[in-house]
Amino acid sequence: MPIALGLVGVGKIARDQHLPAIARGEAFDLIAMASRDAAGLSDVRFTSLKQMLDATPILAAISLASPPVGRAELAREALLAGKHIMLEKPPCATLGEVRGLEDLAKEKSLTLFATWHSREAAGVEAARAWLADKHIQSGAIAWCEDVRVWHPGQDWIFAPGGLGVFDPGINALSILTAILPGNVSVLEAELETPENRQAPIRARVTMLHQGDARIAAEFDFLYKGDPHWSIDVVTAEGALRMDQGGARLCIDGKEVESGDSQEYDRLYVRFAQLIQSRRSDVDVRPLALVADALLVGTRRTVDAFYF
Amino acid sequence: MPIALGLVGVGKIARDQHLPAIARGEAFDLIAMASRDAAGLSDVRFTSLKQMLDATPILAAISLASPPVGRAELAREALLAGKHIMLEKPPCATLGEVRGLEDLAKEKSLTLFATWHSREAAGVEAARAWLADKHIQSGAIAWCEDVRVWHPGQDWIFAPGGLGVFDPGINALSILTAILPGNVSVLEAELETPENRQAPIRARVTMLHQGDARIAAEFDFLYKGDPHWSIDVVTAEGALRMDQGGARLCIDGKEVESGDSQEYDRLYVRFAQLIQSRRSDVDVRPLALVADALLVGTRRTVDAFYF
Repeated sequence: MPIALGLVGVGKIARDQHLPAIARGEAFDLIAMASRDAAGLSDVRFTSLKQMLDATPILAAISLASPPVGRAELAREALLAGKHIMLEKPPCATLGEVRGLEDLAKEKSLTLFATWHSREAAGVEAARAWLADKHIQSGAIAWCEDVRVWHPGQDWIFAPGGLGVFDPGINALSILTAILPGNVSVLEAELETPENRQAPIRARVTMLHQGDARIAAEFDFLYKGDPHWSIDVVTAEGALRMDQGGARLCIDGKEVESGDSQEYDRLYVRFAQLIQSRRSDVDVRPLALVADALLVGTRRTVDAFYF
Repeated sequence: MPIALGLVGVGKIARDQHLPAIARGEAFDLIAMASRDAAGLSDVRFTSLKQMLDATPILAAISLASPPVGRAELAREALLAGKHIMLEKPPCATLGEVRGLEDLAKEKSLTLFATWHSREAAGVEAARAWLADKHIQSGAIAWCEDVRVWHPGQDWIFAPGGLGVFDPGINALSILTAILPGNVSVLEAELETPENRQAPIRARVTMLHQGDARIAAEFDFLYKGDPHWSIDVVTAEGALRMDQGGARLCIDGKEVESGDSQEYDRLYVRFAQLIQSRRSDVDVRPLALVADALLVGTRRTVDAFYF
């Protein structure tokens, strides 16, 4: 029997990804949706999680696709109401919020699933398996896109807690931490923030794998060409390249067949499995790397940005 | 038999606290010291950890009191050489660095002790015990001092990774996370950074205990009066106040006798105990709270600061 699901936050990512994936899958039955801006939406009945929970006690699980700032409070409310929780990425605005939710989910024996959709991209598992026994020598990330095309009008992304260019960039970090066998840490960072915004629009971050191999990452929200989302890893035994955000994998220049990506389909399958087995899946490392870049980053103010 | 100890970083905190505490205690025998600026110091023989390790193979443990940026690399080098490690606070410049050291110490069966000296202040244990079963309603932190008096000429404190006013402020956060029974997270923050510096000189941080009780923290590096380092916690069953950086504890206005603080004496006793029992003690929560304040903080540029 499908699990009764409620969705909170019906913005771009919900319409583009969550709704089609839920509809295609068989694990969940989408019973209700809530959105702060529900006024103009014929398919959204509730303007708050509270309304939805009060009116729809049958719900067993809640998927939160609202922006990260404020998501912890919603997740807490839903956990206290006894619901299993799936969180869009990044799981919360802060590491402390994630920790609090983990504690609460454990206390209540509920599932908390902090998703990283890019980890479900087609090439990731094969990349992880290939790198598992390799000696990593260096790496590079280029995550470049035009924010006006990919996040049109999404002002929250540049507000405090919105992460700026790290909102897409954290996808790269979620893949990096999934495929590399050892620990990744930030050595230094340069952050460019528009004078009228709070979050960076460009960032260069130097990371270390196992304290020695350098990984140079470039995150650019002002990139005008075709977007590219690529990760290179050089090892003593050959080189790996992922592009198309992790969907395409090449090893020593030769493409590895990986099938389709179906990122969100896989996330909902996994959420159902976690609920069945009453487990949680929470990995804060990608968010911690962003926090670390802010801790040690050198800041520079750049030209104002307007959508 | 005392444990053969090497000390790296012989600056203000080493001279004021580490050296006297090591000399008073019986657990360690200080065999060697290394400092980048050893040239003018008659008691420091080495200018690098590497020199010290090569010339003094007898060392079993290393205490790192150099600034946080670069400390992870030193700790890694010492762990790879088979030494137990004690880290000044904050343990590293980033959370990822701490995680990497934890992994390495575990792999090598060595002790890693990330110290928080303020947690050893005289009133902390009694405060923790009293709060353990209380319902927390609210809290307040005021950590106000004149950086020119307490950190004269220490430019590194305002450099990237130096934490600025959070360098002392993290002491308050280390006490807060030790005495409160539940999870602490950052809700919002305001950060004031001098136009010629990279780290904040003043910060206001609103935190939540268990997602509901508000804790308002004020960190001020430009405070001209007598410094005050105080924490208030209001509970349904009475109010607690710590001041003098945790040395003095009052419950409902009545002072609780707590003895002397001897923070660093206790740290070295604990380090010896951890080495004996081959355990580590690493709690990143205070550093994660600072990182979280940077993740969600609203930044404002203020007047240039010169020592």
